[in-house]
Amino acid sequence: MPNWLSKRALLTPERIALRAGDHAWTFAELNQRSQRTAQRLAQFGIKKDDHVALLVQNSLQSVEIFHALEYLGAVMVLLNTRLTPYELAWQLQDASAVCLIYDHDYQELTTKIKLHDPGLQIVSTTELLKLHGISVPLSHEFTLDHVHSIIYTSGTTGHPKGVMLTYGNYWWSAVASAINLGLNVNDCWLLCLPVFHVGGLSIVIRGVIYGITVEIHPQFDPVKINESIRQGRVTMISVVSVMLTKMLQELGHASYPTSLRCVLLGGGPVPRTLLEQGEQRNIPLFQTYGMTETASQIATLGPDYLRLKPGSAGKALFPFRLKIIKGGIEQMPGEEGEIVVKGPNVTKGYYRKQAETENVIRDGWLYTGDWGYLDEDGFLYLLDRREDLIISGGENIYPAEVESVILKHPAVEEAGVAGREDQKWGQVPVAFVKLKTGEQVKKEDLFLFCRQRLAGYKVPIAFYFVNELPRNATNKLLRRRLLDLLPLKDG
Amino acid sequence: MPNWLSKRALLTPERIALRAGDHAWTFAELNQRSQRTAQRLAQFGIKKDDHVALLVQNSLQSVEIFHALEYLGAVMVLLNTRLTPYELAWQLQDASAVCLIYDHDYQELTTKIKLHDPGLQIVSTTELLKLHGISVPLSHEFTLDHVHSIIYTSGTTGHPKGVMLTYGNYWWSAVASAINLGLNVNDCWLLCLPVFHVGGLSIVIRGVIYGITVEIHPQFDPVKINESIRQGRVTMISVVSVMLTKMLQELGHASYPTSLRCVLLGGGPVPRTLLEQGEQRNIPLFQTYGMTETASQIATLGPDYLRLKPGSAGKALFPFRLKIIKGGIEQMPGEEGEIVVKGPNVTKGYYRKQAETENVIRDGWLYTGDWGYLDEDGFLYLLDRREDLIISGGENIYPAEVESVILKHPAVEEAGVAGREDQKWGQVPVAFVKLKTGEQVKKEDLFLFCRQRLAGYKVPIAFYFVNELPRNATNKLLRRRLLDLLPLKDG
Repeated sequence: MPNWLSKRALLTPERIALRAGDHAWTFAELNQRSQRTAQRLAQFGIKKDDHVALLVQNSLQSVEIFHALEYLGAVMVLLNTRLTPYELAWQLQDASAVCLIYDHDYQELTTKIKLHDPGLQIVSTTELLKLHGISVPLSHEFTLDHVHSIIYTSGTTGHPKGVMLTYGNYWWSAVASAINLGLNVNDCWLLCLPVFHVGGLSIVIRGVIYGITVEIHPQFDPVKINESIRQGRVTMISVVSVMLTKMLQELGHASYPTSLRCVLLGGGPVPRTLLEQGEQRNIPLFQTYGMTETASQIATLGPDYLRLKPGSAGKALFPFRLKIIKGGIEQMPGEEGEIVVKGPNVTKGYYRKQAETENVIRDGWLYTGDWGYLDEDGFLYLLDRREDLIISGGENIYPAEVESVILKHPAVEEAGVAGREDQKWGQVPVAFVKLKTGEQVKKEDLFLFCRQRLAGYKVPIAFYFVNELPRNATNKLLRRRLLDLLPLKDG
Repeated sequence: MPNWLSKRALLTPERIALRAGDHAWTFAELNQRSQRTAQRLAQFGIKKDDHVALLVQNSLQSVEIFHALEYLGAVMVLLNTRLTPYELAWQLQDASAVCLIYDHDYQELTTKIKLHDPGLQIVSTTELLKLHGISVPLSHEFTLDHVHSIIYTSGTTGHPKGVMLTYGNYWWSAVASAINLGLNVNDCWLLCLPVFHVGGLSIVIRGVIYGITVEIHPQFDPVKINESIRQGRVTMISVVSVMLTKMLQELGHASYPTSLRCVLLGGGPVPRTLLEQGEQRNIPLFQTYGMTETASQIATLGPDYLRLKPGSAGKALFPFRLKIIKGGIEQMPGEEGEIVVKGPNVTKGYYRKQAETENVIRDGWLYTGDWGYLDEDGFLYLLDRREDLIISGGENIYPAEVESVILKHPAVEEAGVAGREDQKWGQVPVAFVKLKTGEQVKKEDLFLFCRQRLAGYKVPIAFYFVNELPRNATNKLLRRRLLDLLPLKDG
């Protein structure tokens, strides 16, 4: 398959590829810039199959660098900019990154990462884009089986896992999404999800495959987003619930123009009230279900069915498949079980984690760990997220990861973390802690202890001291019963 | 990959899949019918990988049978209904067909075919659809590499070749076309090209993959087609030049509504006046270049470029590739050479013709035999069709095939066939004949002799008697110089 950007620049050189603020780049311009930046990156010795980490925000330059890395055949490792230096240093090492490219805004963060890994080669995007490049052969062919990027997802064991997504995973995701949502040459997809998440990055890639404009917003600002939509140039947007809630609040009694034909709503459960509000205001809501391992959406519910099938995540996109398995047996409609999916969009596995990969991908089917059922018409309903997953404002939090940090505190004997309902964020993490005999510690100390080691959104907003955590006969922590301990006095 | 129809029926059961006259079938209905007909076909012992020939017209029932054969994993051999019994019997044998399914209209033709091949199992569609089926496992998974259909294309050696098109060929063609033309859930594609041509069959397949309506016209009737378009329900149509000319004549001073968003114009060269007429009338013309071996379009010129690049066939669709080769070397813009294409839409070869396959497909590139060049912006211009190909009303005619028939006449010593320009059909075949010494024969006799052995459109409309045919030093017939012999007295 030809290099997507070079093919696109050949086909429709004059169409607008990217827009950000007052700037707009055509596909020809983006292509020229990306090729030049590939030559700049080559100065640092970056070559085919090298792992290059990125600590960047949503910007024209970030997209330019992504495509430059594609031109070199390098694998991009996308880092969540909200993580702590400690977490980032761990991921950089786990991903075998040979270089870290960072935006100026993350200078301080990068300096701290360097403390953990003094040998790491670092390059700021500002410096990079000032360089003269060197002549280097560019990759004009893509192999669908080749890894395009590694995106970390928190794991159940306390450490995140690097999901390897291939060119083919993104390609098939783009194709399936187009078959489901349709495609117009005048489409413009607003990008406000961070590019380090699969939901953001896949918009960047789709823009090139489809030949449509991606409007880049550096951060989520409901005022600016509503302004863009109301000017009629945005036709599609991907958001999580907390974003849409803020957008609708900001919108007040106004409404969106019909040019907005698709609001893809992903990243966790959607409050019923938000769905109702969307329906009342005639917003073309597409509720989706997906994960990093499926290169974004695997199932989607269209607006036609919002009223008929409220709360459903729809059906698996063409040509993906989905079934419910329990005890190794496919379940009938209405019967609960684990959600199991298959398709060319499914990851080839976790980087250097063969056992974990074989544990979740069997016979080409991905065992998501999520629990749900299909109704008689084949619509998917989610019941419980995998492994007690907490989703807070679209970010995934694995209790095991937070617990493993709390357990490092010298005064703590046992810890359990669960997600408490929250009007704004959907869920927020709260911690239940059993101290060692005779030990005492303040809530503030535990908070600071976590904050130094965990991204802000992962830090529990409340700590409760308990004498015993709920466990089953084999002493396994029953996280789902933690919230039953409430109300408790805040620690 | 899941069976396309079964997946589509699961996703959008209530959408209209097919419309023909006053009849409309939803995807659920088409699916149920096709499954039932698969069970009927199983009565005849038809199973996976069997080759089943079809002599059918455009109808709801034909589409039902196509999908039934997919459900059985059988390979369909599509027969051109305009061929003679002699030609058809040859193809049936060449294709190893175990069964022939024919429409009532072709009863007489089928009886004649039976004379050539008494052992052939034949089934009329009318009978077939009356039967009760038997229980049989249906194919709910497609393998992209599996052959879906065999479509014959005339060859240079005098005998047609069976082009094997896989599920993957059709899939990628559908995806590439959608990326280029866009896709709306309300699209409706009018099918008036015969389903035994790749241009017709691929519409049937796209309808299911896209989840859009296909409106079936049993034959090309410009009055009915214009009526459908003017009612606003047709958004896309595929035609050849002679069809569009008739449609515009019939349309008179009226115009098409803007709901018609795409007129795909394929099957050979387009007269400049037709392109100009289309442009003046604001018809969204997409001039395409393709062939059976590429599962329809490989390159397309959009309406935006009609004025800028008149006469061009556009650029290779995303993600296909195209280059110009001469003497084994890729040519620069402006330089002429053979058109060579690559992509997952390219056939895996000719059935049981390994040598011919290896001759045209090398390193994954298909050597089309067509001659052309790319301009500086990468737009393709065709100069000469492969092997002196004559295209008459969208049907391909290979001179070698017609010549080989004329040469069978006892009075004929040499024969050469070429395409003469024709206002209505684009081109028509004319024959140049050198008789054996002392022999005499009437033009009418030669005409009848050909008519018995060749489809009507292949029979030369004029026979010219000559003393010598133009040949080069190695005695190779120079067909391109045949027309220089005119004017000659019609034989």
